[in-house]
Amino acid sequence: MADVDFCVVGAGFAGLTAALRLKQAGRAVALLEARDRVGGRTFTVTRDDGVWIDRGGAWIGPGQDRIYALMDELGVPEYKQHNDGDAMMIVDGKKHRYGGKLPWTMSPWAVANLGIGLLTVEQMCKTIPRESPWEAKDAAEWDRISLGDWLERNVLSKPAREMLDMALAGPYTTASSEVSLLWMLLQMASGGGPTFVISGTGGAQDARPVGGMGAIYRPMAAELGDALHMSRPVRRIAQDADGVTVVAEGLALRARRVIVTIPVAIAGSIVYEPMLPADRALLHQRMPGGAVIKTSVIYDEAFWRSDGLSGQSAAPHTPATLTIDACTDTGNPGIMCVITEGPAARRLTRLDEAERKATVIGELVSRFGDKAATPVEYHEQNWTVERYSGGGMISHTPTGVLTEFGPALRAPCGRVHWAGTESSAIMCGWIDGAIRSGERAASEVMANETATAAVT
Amino acid sequence: MADVDFCVVGAGFAGLTAALRLKQAGRAVALLEARDRVGGRTFTVTRDDGVWIDRGGAWIGPGQDRIYALMDELGVPEYKQHNDGDAMMIVDGKKHRYGGKLPWTMSPWAVANLGIGLLTVEQMCKTIPRESPWEAKDAAEWDRISLGDWLERNVLSKPAREMLDMALAGPYTTASSEVSLLWMLLQMASGGGPTFVISGTGGAQDARPVGGMGAIYRPMAAELGDALHMSRPVRRIAQDADGVTVVAEGLALRARRVIVTIPVAIAGSIVYEPMLPADRALLHQRMPGGAVIKTSVIYDEAFWRSDGLSGQSAAPHTPATLTIDACTDTGNPGIMCVITEGPAARRLTRLDEAERKATVIGELVSRFGDKAATPVEYHEQNWTVERYSGGGMISHTPTGVLTEFGPALRAPCGRVHWAGTESSAIMCGWIDGAIRSGERAASEVMANETATAAVT
Repeated sequence: MADVDFCVVGAGFAGLTAALRLKQAGRAVALLEARDRVGGRTFTVTRDDGVWIDRGGAWIGPGQDRIYALMDELGVPEYKQHNDGDAMMIVDGKKHRYGGKLPWTMSPWAVANLGIGLLTVEQMCKTIPRESPWEAKDAAEWDRISLGDWLERNVLSKPAREMLDMALAGPYTTASSEVSLLWMLLQMASGGGPTFVISGTGGAQDARPVGGMGAIYRPMAAELGDALHMSRPVRRIAQDADGVTVVAEGLALRARRVIVTIPVAIAGSIVYEPMLPADRALLHQRMPGGAVIKTSVIYDEAFWRSDGLSGQSAAPHTPATLTIDACTDTGNPGIMCVITEGPAARRLTRLDEAERKATVIGELVSRFGDKAATPVEYHEQNWTVERYSGGGMISHTPTGVLTEFGPALRAPCGRVHWAGTESSAIMCGWIDGAIRSGERAASEVMANETATAAVT
Repeated sequence: MADVDFCVVGAGFAGLTAALRLKQAGRAVALLEARDRVGGRTFTVTRDDGVWIDRGGAWIGPGQDRIYALMDELGVPEYKQHNDGDAMMIVDGKKHRYGGKLPWTMSPWAVANLGIGLLTVEQMCKTIPRESPWEAKDAAEWDRISLGDWLERNVLSKPAREMLDMALAGPYTTASSEVSLLWMLLQMASGGGPTFVISGTGGAQDARPVGGMGAIYRPMAAELGDALHMSRPVRRIAQDADGVTVVAEGLALRARRVIVTIPVAIAGSIVYEPMLPADRALLHQRMPGGAVIKTSVIYDEAFWRSDGLSGQSAAPHTPATLTIDACTDTGNPGIMCVITEGPAARRLTRLDEAERKATVIGELVSRFGDKAATPVEYHEQNWTVERYSGGGMISHTPTGVLTEFGPALRAPCGRVHWAGTESSAIMCGWIDGAIRSGERAASEVMANETATAAVT
């Protein structure tokens, strides 16, 4: 049995960061990854000609200081997201093409509802203490109301409600009826409010790393070297007075402490000995992932740009819930990213591959015209059925959970520590939040080294 | 590797019933149980003198035809629950002693609120199709509202709201803010409505089997003989064109089909190959258990009876949320059952054993007088930390889940079939529902035998 100072479970950005920071601090570390690749909910495929496709998380923006710091360390530059041209919203089958932030071709009533809805959420977000959202003045009330119910009661225009529903529940890729209003507010607040979250320029889709996320995670994995163990799903974590034993498929390790970075919904599939404290064990049953398919459709050129379109479109409940220009920094070839969210993704999952492709291409043609009919490549990434992500895009808490179990999200359980983007008070749900959580957990285990020695 | 016709996972009432019905139909069956005992969320301890304590599910009532049928088969008689004498409600520290169904010493306003609340729920229940609650006329609305929110908006008297909260959210032993209104309505409807559910005589606490639940499950286990394998937690279920391979700790089996009867929240800890369909995999993340401690306090005699009390008391948010007379059919010794639910159970779990005992006894003394201070025996069963139940008392669905994922609760996934009380349309959440689900699943796998042969 190998002996290390610290073991890290899961080589997404949280785990890669935790392991790297520990190694850089001179600690012996082992990073166990279930898959045969690193990156977690990010996944960059790079063609021989250097063109890359981000099949998972891809965008970065202002305020995400920790991912920018990491990019600086690794010498990875950013490039700005292409946002020129009109966007589109499709509501009730009707296409609205517009410039600026709001679809002015919708009825004034709908536009007013949309604007007021966003402003209200923006103001509610300001009352949320990000480290302890359960202490917000209205926490009890906002946590017993689902986002879907809140929208139903507070946004009277149906088109506006559908757009807000998509914007606010979108990241959880599940029906808004499943999501606690307080969770949405916390998650939006952690990113700086809904305007930031849904915005391109100056917002969460402001830029991308040149080379994609892989340009960041590949050198991290390389620096970890043989500390990184692939295809080792962890099955059991046993802690005792002296340390922890971590048992993965075909590998067992002994460490002082362990950092578990995998999504909460699948952290419960590990057997913990002794059982975790009740609040953490019950939290594992209460933080589901969603259904999401990210499809990257590659064309000879980004024809939508010459048609005066940004490539961004939003169409609630359809198989192409969102589209966004996903070209590399050169703008060639044309890469259109299609994100299918929630119930629509589950419906699409039930079709066979050819049907899914025909459906998605059909949506693109109806939105961007006939040129969309003839892609040169088609990459489908169905996070819904990714065993080791437990779904995507990010987890949510149902009503009541954040106020009852919130502190368990970060509180260490003896020698077991927790990371992952959903545990970050800042940029919760973004890659930056994952990096922050990894750095926090690395500090946590090192701060407890003396305590450890005292116990042993 | 042993070869059987059918494998059953989990030896609670659902699994015992499924395995027994299959064996009785002449099929080779293996029943794998993780614990070193059978019974699941029921657990009867019998003293040498024949006195038994039901440390888990205990009561039966009218309409629970399948458990009565099983008791007839096995020659287990029932006895009626002791309901003579006054009950108590403690609200805001004030004790109300009353006869009949409602605490008339509360304010008329509170009593009216309580009565109207129950009546409203009763009427809503009547609109729920028990086999497909997601098709109820108001399903979408009721599933996006939490029970806690509904109570807050619809029951204006605080004492009445607290009592209703306890009565309606009680079975899920979690904050009412976590529970979908539609789930509560379905679960109540499956038992015949809230009046049945909360009632002693003529209701869900009408009677008990003589000898406790063990008097039923022990002969079932005995009849299964060496088909029953104890201490075999199942880790992996792999299905292929010819059958399933079920891998437990220290035992692997080959069968045509498998019936998984363990609670949904822990069914996700099994590795399924290939992955289950998306809806079922995501459901595993969406049906949490609660926190509940059942304490049986034994006295030389049932002193409360001579004091004119039934032994029933209800005190929301306290460490003795509910008490109920739990004597055997002879009425001797005095057995007082204390049920600690939800957040109160989690708080109690954090204390050490001595503190927990002092707290519970203290509550009993303040409620039933000094005679409660000197028990002769004290049995604490903390279902919150039962690894192989995933908590107690019964699971719930958060908002949005029943309408989105409801059909996945029962739909077989290839050769993997599902049982467990929460999958029963009738008496969902009761032992009778578990038995029904086991019988349904046994029929299901036998009905597919020919299909199986065709595939292989």
